[in-house]
Amino acid sequence: MSARFTRLIRFLAKDGRTYYGDAILPQGVSDVAKAQRARIIEGDIFGKYNVTDQEVGVRLLLAPLAQSHVKTVRCLGLNYAKHAKESNLPEPKFPVLFYKPITSLSGPVDPIPVHSMAQEGTGLDYECELVVVIGKRCTDVSEADALDYVLGYSIGNDVSHRDWQLKHGGSQWSLGKAFDGWAPFGPAIVTGDVIKDPQNLKIWTKVNGQTVQDGNTADQIFSVRQMISFLSRGVTLLPGDVIFTGTPEGVGMGRKPQLWLKDGDVVEVGLESVGTCTNKVEFDAPKAKI
Amino acid sequence: MSARFTRLIRFLAKDGRTYYGDAILPQGVSDVAKAQRARIIEGDIFGKYNVTDQEVGVRLLLAPLAQSHVKTVRCLGLNYAKHAKESNLPEPKFPVLFYKPITSLSGPVDPIPVHSMAQEGTGLDYECELVVVIGKRCTDVSEADALDYVLGYSIGNDVSHRDWQLKHGGSQWSLGKAFDGWAPFGPAIVTGDVIKDPQNLKIWTKVNGQTVQDGNTADQIFSVRQMISFLSRGVTLLPGDVIFTGTPEGVGMGRKPQLWLKDGDVVEVGLESVGTCTNKVEFDAPKAKI
Repeated sequence: MSARFTRLIRFLAKDGRTYYGDAILPQGVSDVAKAQRARIIEGDIFGKYNVTDQEVGVRLLLAPLAQSHVKTVRCLGLNYAKHAKESNLPEPKFPVLFYKPITSLSGPVDPIPVHSMAQEGTGLDYECELVVVIGKRCTDVSEADALDYVLGYSIGNDVSHRDWQLKHGGSQWSLGKAFDGWAPFGPAIVTGDVIKDPQNLKIWTKVNGQTVQDGNTADQIFSVRQMISFLSRGVTLLPGDVIFTGTPEGVGMGRKPQLWLKDGDVVEVGLESVGTCTNKVEFDAPKAKI
Repeated sequence: MSARFTRLIRFLAKDGRTYYGDAILPQGVSDVAKAQRARIIEGDIFGKYNVTDQEVGVRLLLAPLAQSHVKTVRCLGLNYAKHAKESNLPEPKFPVLFYKPITSLSGPVDPIPVHSMAQEGTGLDYECELVVVIGKRCTDVSEADALDYVLGYSIGNDVSHRDWQLKHGGSQWSLGKAFDGWAPFGPAIVTGDVIKDPQNLKIWTKVNGQTVQDGNTADQIFSVRQMISFLSRGVTLLPGDVIFTGTPEGVGMGRKPQLWLKDGDVVEVGLESVGTCTNKVEFDAPKAKI
């Protein structure tokens, strides 16, 4: 029995049950999506828990947090300088904050369902993002202490429809980002024991195998420390709060020619030390469940 | 034992315990904030429950939903034509959607704490809003069926800091609306058995006893039926989702001269058939708990 998990996954096991587990990686493998076995975690992942010695086989990776464990999903816009530039928007002075509903979260191999409303017009786009999961309640946290409140890091895709985000929403971006399954994340929540510095991680997107975003979290305008400190000013962050921390350059909207996702496309978002989250675009697919 | 509650409250009782209850109104009283007694509700307010015959005295009204019962808090902007005009913004073609975090919710007599960050600059403002609470999971609901998914109606205050909302947030309104305790609501969630038509309710704000907003939900651009149908397109609404449905004209920003809330001000927001939610502005007050 080990004290703390380092790569938290949630999965359907070969015994037919759903567990939280600590992923076991084969020698030389760093992508948690390739984990085939895990040690079962018993207890409260935000409080007292045990990583047991019981190993089970992984049948299917799920969103690394159950929906009942997620409180608020915050997202930052324009948090990489080159992405702000490709969006023709000035570099922000303060974090640009918006939200996604908890129902937008899904897992690292779930489909991205595209409702008929978002099949109209153009603009279905990907955004690879470093995802931060809050582990402890906090308010008015200093930058120095901010990482003490982090459960771990993951990779997610802030799927967006640019027409609904930018043209039809009356200045607010929510309509283009809120659909069920439009915030896949995973494969794991990797802790600070593995990721000592969240500001030096390669981050990328591949569409049908072709690299379209190829960045590094070193280029974030607001670091994880800064955003947690700022977002917690007068605002209580709760265990299970999720922060999508912005995307680097290379989104479909910013490319020449523009690149929009279409039915059947396979989108991989990846983060160094975490792995890959790979989701297939499915027009009117059955809804993913977390 | 009666089958269904009509005026759901959550309260600290005179016996020192916290309950959900069905408020008992004295003859001739319609403001649930004046309820002194309630029948205790046992069970799941979204599922199987009983309104018992056990009556208890109300010591303190709390937010009508426990934080653990709230999922996503959606808000609509510019949903009354005259308010869009006073904001110098065009009438929207689609609902203007934004969110508040669940930690912004508080109760009908809690203080509105103003963090030092929001004491800077000008622009602390009130917005009385009809609040809709979703009672059943739904997706892609028709306008005809929309009200079947409503648990009930309440009145809330979408407290806003205009500088942080409009000047510092990089176009997104979230920074000026997210503080702890900036979405007081209550005193009750009143069901469709009492409110047959949510589109014909007087709605108002008083600051220190003076009426500053005096509207009617008949003037909403998107009705409750329309917004539930639209917001559920490709998006699953969950029991415990809360929708703040926009504010009528008369906000402090739109007045001449402008009227900003200050430390010690008492703000009452009210809705016909529900009652009043009265909150005192307290610079650096202790945080409200829901």
